[in-house]
Amino acid sequence: MRRFLDLLDLEDTQIQNLLALAGDLEQTPRHDTLRGRVLGLIFMNPSLRTLASFQAGMAQLGGSTFVLTPGQGTWQLETRDGVVMDQEAAEHVREAIPVLAQYCDALGVRAFANGKHLDEDLGEGVLRAISDVAPCPLINLESAANHPCQALADWKTLDDLGVSPRGRFVLSWAWHPKPLPLAVPTAALGMAARRGMDVVVARPEGFALPDSLMERARRAAAASGGSVSETTDYESAMRDADVLYAKSWQAPSVYGDAEAESKLRAGLRTWCVREDWFSSARPDAIFMHCLPVRRNVVVADEVLDGPRSRVVRQAGNRLHVQKAVLLEMLGSL
Amino acid sequence: MRRFLDLLDLEDTQIQNLLALAGDLEQTPRHDTLRGRVLGLIFMNPSLRTLASFQAGMAQLGGSTFVLTPGQGTWQLETRDGVVMDQEAAEHVREAIPVLAQYCDALGVRAFANGKHLDEDLGEGVLRAISDVAPCPLINLESAANHPCQALADWKTLDDLGVSPRGRFVLSWAWHPKPLPLAVPTAALGMAARRGMDVVVARPEGFALPDSLMERARRAAAASGGSVSETTDYESAMRDADVLYAKSWQAPSVYGDAEAESKLRAGLRTWCVREDWFSSARPDAIFMHCLPVRRNVVVADEVLDGPRSRVVRQAGNRLHVQKAVLLEMLGSL
Amino acid sequence: MRRFLDLLDLEDTQIQNLLALAGDLEQTPRHDTLRGRVLGLIFMNPSLRTLASFQAGMAQLGGSTFVLTPGQGTWQLETRDGVVMDQEAAEHVREAIPVLAQYCDALGVRAFANGKHLDEDLGEGVLRAISDVAPCPLINLESAANHPCQALADWKTLDDLGVSPRGRFVLSWAWHPKPLPLAVPTAALGMAARRGMDVVVARPEGFALPDSLMERARRAAAASGGSVSETTDYESAMRDADVLYAKSWQAPSVYGDAEAESKLRAGLRTWCVREDWFSSARPDAIFMHCLPVRRNVVVADEVLDGPRSRVVRQAGNRLHVQKAVLLEMLGSL
Repeated sequence: MRRFLDLLDLEDTQIQNLLALAGDLEQTPRHDTLRGRVLGLIFMNPSLRTLASFQAGMAQLGGSTFVLTPGQGTWQLETRDGVVMDQEAAEHVREAIPVLAQYCDALGVRAFANGKHLDEDLGEGVLRAISDVAPCPLINLESAANHPCQALADWKTLDDLGVSPRGRFVLSWAWHPKPLPLAVPTAALGMAARRGMDVVVARPEGFALPDSLMERARRAAAASGGSVSETTDYESAMRDADVLYAKSWQAPSVYGDAEAESKLRAGLRTWCVREDWFSSARPDAIFMHCLPVRRNVVVADEVLDGPRSRVVRQAGNRLHVQKAVLLEMLGSL
Repeated sequence: MRRFLDLLDLEDTQIQNLLALAGDLEQTPRHDTLRGRVLGLIFMNPSLRTLASFQAGMAQLGGSTFVLTPGQGTWQLETRDGVVMDQEAAEHVREAIPVLAQYCDALGVRAFANGKHLDEDLGEGVLRAISDVAPCPLINLESAANHPCQALADWKTLDDLGVSPRGRFVLSWAWHPKPLPLAVPTAALGMAARRGMDVVVARPEGFALPDSLMERARRAAAASGGSVSETTDYESAMRDADVLYAKSWQAPSVYGDAEAESKLRAGLRTWCVREDWFSSARPDAIFMHCLPVRRNVVVADEVLDGPRSRVVRQAGNRLHVQKAVLLEMLGSL
Repeated sequence: MRRFLDLLDLEDTQIQNLLALAGDLEQTPRHDTLRGRVLGLIFMNPSLRTLASFQAGMAQLGGSTFVLTPGQGTWQLETRDGVVMDQEAAEHVREAIPVLAQYCDALGVRAFANGKHLDEDLGEGVLRAISDVAPCPLINLESAANHPCQALADWKTLDDLGVSPRGRFVLSWAWHPKPLPLAVPTAALGMAARRGMDVVVARPEGFALPDSLMERARRAAAASGGSVSETTDYESAMRDADVLYAKSWQAPSVYGDAEAESKLRAGLRTWCVREDWFSSARPDAIFMHCLPVRRNVVVADEVLDGPRSRVVRQAGNRLHVQKAVLLEMLGSL
């Protein structure tokens, strides 16, 4: 495996093999497997889980990492072709990425959405520009519109907990003080559809996910035997639900227009998950979120501190699935 | 040992065992003892010694580290319970700490005093909030009102140099351009009292340490056979002194009131340690400071560059005692 | 070897041994050579290659690193002697460096030019202040007026590519939106002269390199059989050239005067390397640059993306030569 950019790029057997390997790694340390191997991590945006778990994972496998933060301790990087670089960016990825590939065995890159132009962000221009010039294995640490490490960790979490592959998976929008990227909604939606679940997207008017993302999920569901639907009513969505996956995202209908977005969000603070959201769900329905999560904004304390929450386990599985990805990429070299 | 938050929480035998182990580690490398083990380091404030020595120490023992800096490359963290998180902090320690504990074998946290409310800072609310939810071993890398790694390193330094456990230890306030936390004064005062020394706190009017800290030190002295007193006259304090430990701290009498504090400090630049401070001390009296230290502000070049200064050795001992703490916490797992 | 501060400080045999060792390391991993050894890296300025390659290099040799960034996650450091430290810097290198030397086996320091006073920058005051108090091996990661790691990597690159030691090496100034340090021009000029090449410095009026730097290169050339000349005409400079090494630098004639420098640069955007610069050069003439490089500002896409560019290979050689330096410094201890 040379690229881990989108979970839906993988074959079913690849996904199953990664999940099996992740389960094995959760049980058994392999201290020397990646001895002398180096993973380079480029963070254009903040991180807690990804930053810690990739460093820890490589270390546990006997390897090492280095971390670069363009715009902070490292030069700002340009990704557009043909630009006259007389502004902020001092270096182009066309140099930076091939250079770094000489120092390490694989690269991971985090580059969040710009949040200005929907087509640009959905087009994954930054990730593509980097992938086009990376001669080494490359891992998406969350891009403008995807987060495959999170998706694979979530899949493992559902398997670990015995959630039926035919169960009902509700992806619900939640209120948040800032407009957030579409990366995790895309990843969670695609993952659940690919797993064969009946996926319902609950979101207010104006927050419908872009057609291309819904269509992508529908294709995945068609292949796996799942389904994808959407609604503006979270109460009806939750009926018989097995999983509530909450996440805020900015309004695709007014993407990049901060003022219009703010107005659209104004009356929507009731979109904060509380225990009573689960009244018509299955009794053992679980709550999921990729973290970081704002307490009593996106979800109430009563849910996060209650028995439904699986958010810590989701994050724990980041470590295991990422180690599996690293072994697939580097272990056999 | 699951917590290293306050040196005075430890039994005498625990302290002696750590000091003995630190002495052993200073002589003998143990390259593979912590192979595959990971220490997570969370720095909410700047660091030189702590950042470098914990990374170096884990590496020398065969383990690894990762470093997170909330508010810089990582989300700002909330520590208060029940808050509606619609302000700056994007993640709560109730999620962040259990999540990180899944990636590593122990955590270290640095969280300086807020400097606004004395009771809050003395209450160690941030450290307690983290300790309450940390399922893994936890090390205090300097909290609002303590610095146990420094205290243990200082104890070892006194032992290394053969300073009598019944000697006279002067903790002196010094002038500084900014109001500084009480963490190191607390740690040094408690350490010297617990070691059985005759401790004198020299500080100007208005800079008396809070009653609770003095009382804590007096209890430690009562158990060890030492004593604790205070004075506003550094000259008399220095008579027959074995050790001068200098440190600036903000005025507890006007805590959080920057203007009043500034006035109180205005005439006090003579509180800069010079060689003549030692005229009535024992001939081989030593100078100690936790570092960083401002030259010719807190202490004159003539002292730091002269034969009395042990500040570099103190800092060197940070490495050895911390490796002992790490082995106690992780070595037997 | 205890210091790697200036390539021209080394004997010919030392340089040849480092180049031979670097070539060997490029072929053969030595995973355990530096087991348990730690390199401390102090970055007072941003970095991509140096930050990544030193961390990767130590890891590949079995050792570890820690990174400090004074002024960011670590206190700002004072380097001047005798100062009353009541301003920004909280710690002096007279403490910080000996302290850190206790935690690691070697230190690397990056401290760019201040850009205000030419004599001060050429005097390398910061690097000297650190070297004077460092009890451990010390590596220059780019100082005010030198970059020996880059120079050695460039030498290896010329050897790798079979560029004749008697070939023509053109060091050309290029336009840039900001005034840049003299470190890389100094390093490249000295390296090529020491290698025995016929070196021509092409630069506009006002951008002549300081006499002391030209004289230093002439002495190196005299010993090696090379030559050093300069011109304001890049076209004539390029006649029969084997190598064009481009780099921008601020005008020594108005050093520290931003306004005058800006005026001097105003009409000089034609100093952007294009393919037609090579029309009178040798057919297989190569293009070199230390990176980061601003595309279509310092050099056109057509050159960087064309067959002449060796910039990625130069950067790749940073890893190999630095590992050689580390082994020379630490391997035999």
